[in-house]
Amino acid sequence: MGRITTLEEHACCGGRIGFYSHASDSLGLEARFGVFLPPRALAGERVPVVHVLAGLTCTQETFLIKSNAVRFAARHGLALVAPDTSPRGAGVAGEDDAYDLGTGAGFYLDATTPAWRRHYRMGTYVSQELPELTQAHFAIDGARRGIMGHSMGGHGALVHALRAPQAWKSVSAFAPICHPATVPWGEKAFAAYLGSDRATWARHDATLLLEAGHTHPTEILVDQGESDKFLHDQLKPELLAAAARQAGQELRLRLHAGYDHSYWFIQSFIADHIDHHSAVLNAL
Amino acid sequence: MGRITTLEEHACCGGRIGFYSHASDSLGLEARFGVFLPPRALAGERVPVVHVLAGLTCTQETFLIKSNAVRFAARHGLALVAPDTSPRGAGVAGEDDAYDLGTGAGFYLDATTPAWRRHYRMGTYVSQELPELTQAHFAIDGARRGIMGHSMGGHGALVHALRAPQAWKSVSAFAPICHPATVPWGEKAFAAYLGSDRATWARHDATLLLEAGHTHPTEILVDQGESDKFLHDQLKPELLAAAARQAGQELRLRLHAGYDHSYWFIQSFIADHIDHHSAVLNAL
Repeated sequence: MGRITTLEEHACCGGRIGFYSHASDSLGLEARFGVFLPPRALAGERVPVVHVLAGLTCTQETFLIKSNAVRFAARHGLALVAPDTSPRGAGVAGEDDAYDLGTGAGFYLDATTPAWRRHYRMGTYVSQELPELTQAHFAIDGARRGIMGHSMGGHGALVHALRAPQAWKSVSAFAPICHPATVPWGEKAFAAYLGSDRATWARHDATLLLEAGHTHPTEILVDQGESDKFLHDQLKPELLAAAARQAGQELRLRLHAGYDHSYWFIQSFIADHIDHHSAVLNAL
Repeated sequence: MGRITTLEEHACCGGRIGFYSHASDSLGLEARFGVFLPPRALAGERVPVVHVLAGLTCTQETFLIKSNAVRFAARHGLALVAPDTSPRGAGVAGEDDAYDLGTGAGFYLDATTPAWRRHYRMGTYVSQELPELTQAHFAIDGARRGIMGHSMGGHGALVHALRAPQAWKSVSAFAPICHPATVPWGEKAFAAYLGSDRATWARHDATLLLEAGHTHPTEILVDQGESDKFLHDQLKPELLAAAARQAGQELRLRLHAGYDHSYWFIQSFIADHIDHHSAVLNAL
């Protein structure tokens, strides 16, 4: 298992939050991630973990510092693991030209097109390398692992949980991109990363995965603000809900009047998400 | 009363957080600030308010998004008001050369030296203009106003509360610069903003204010991390504690093993600070 370098560590809520870098095999680049360990993990006990996936333009720090999640993870004895949102410094032409493609916009998938496939492998990174790395270096119980995310990260959380429900025992999302294959953010990213054959996009789309028979054994929790300016053009939770109904997937989709796409929305409902993951993971 | 321009507003924790700009009379420049209003203020009731002063390099957003304060302010029915940490764009030679002087480093005082005195008037801004402006535009009860801050902002909170205890009914601080007249951050800033006559510095130093007989009628709450790298050279809470003892000032100074100077420290203890202010302000 690879070495990690400690960038910074801070006591927080009785536990410890840290940011680390490592030479990522799957990305072929140095990558950074954050880990919160609750008090009992510092005492040596292996604890359940929730991986948190942030949205476009964010880093490994954003969700941890802005969501208010840490205080509730500490209370429930959960670790948190936060990857970056893309490789950094891959050197792909144009990767820094737009906020929704390339740097900060990895979409938690493995690119297959010649331009992107060398480094843009966040799918493998999130599903395999980072869980293995963090379980090797921290008191984390990989058998009790959940996943959540926001926007692009909500897409990532839903897709990874539906594809590997045995690996991700609990799942939730804030304002996820529910059907990326049919909205501008997803079409742009998938065309670049996966190419023009839309059949290859299906396994990176939560609504299409549900339609194809993938389900998760636990209830999926999704919170969505009704004043989110991306709701109708980019997010489309009603399509996820329809697919879930068809598939027999339990989904608790909560619509919140007045709330938008920001971390102010996330911090308003984060306690319920940590409760949701704790109820599943701490019962295992 | 001056006009304000809404930059952004977000639903949060049942209330609303907003960021605004206005043409500041005291600064002679456009200035930005943040306001959180709890649910009952949105219903029209005038609520108590805590002004929050951030530290070096921060903006009007930093404390609000990183401290976790909003959720507790919502619960206790408190508004929060957050100024920027300095004027922006004053055009003083060298104001952007260092993190601890000029932009992002206004020290919540009125400069008197020729180079700085035209725009660097955060003392008047924080003590008069911003309270009056926010009470005029929002459902805030100016008779129930508290103040808290971090580091440079902790210095500001202590100094303003000790100088005007009738205006600031409650006060607390995280890792404040307790005796700026004798530490590098304070000596650099005071020499630039106030000049070389150290006698003029005394009214901008919480420890010296206590020694001169200024006290606050309520207990002052101060939290300090023992692993804070600035503790011994810049912060010196033991000198504040000694002066408080001499002055008969109630001070609850809590030292926390392992905690540092970051917002991870602040978010670990913010609930106690909001409780502290609520206990005073909601009893008025």
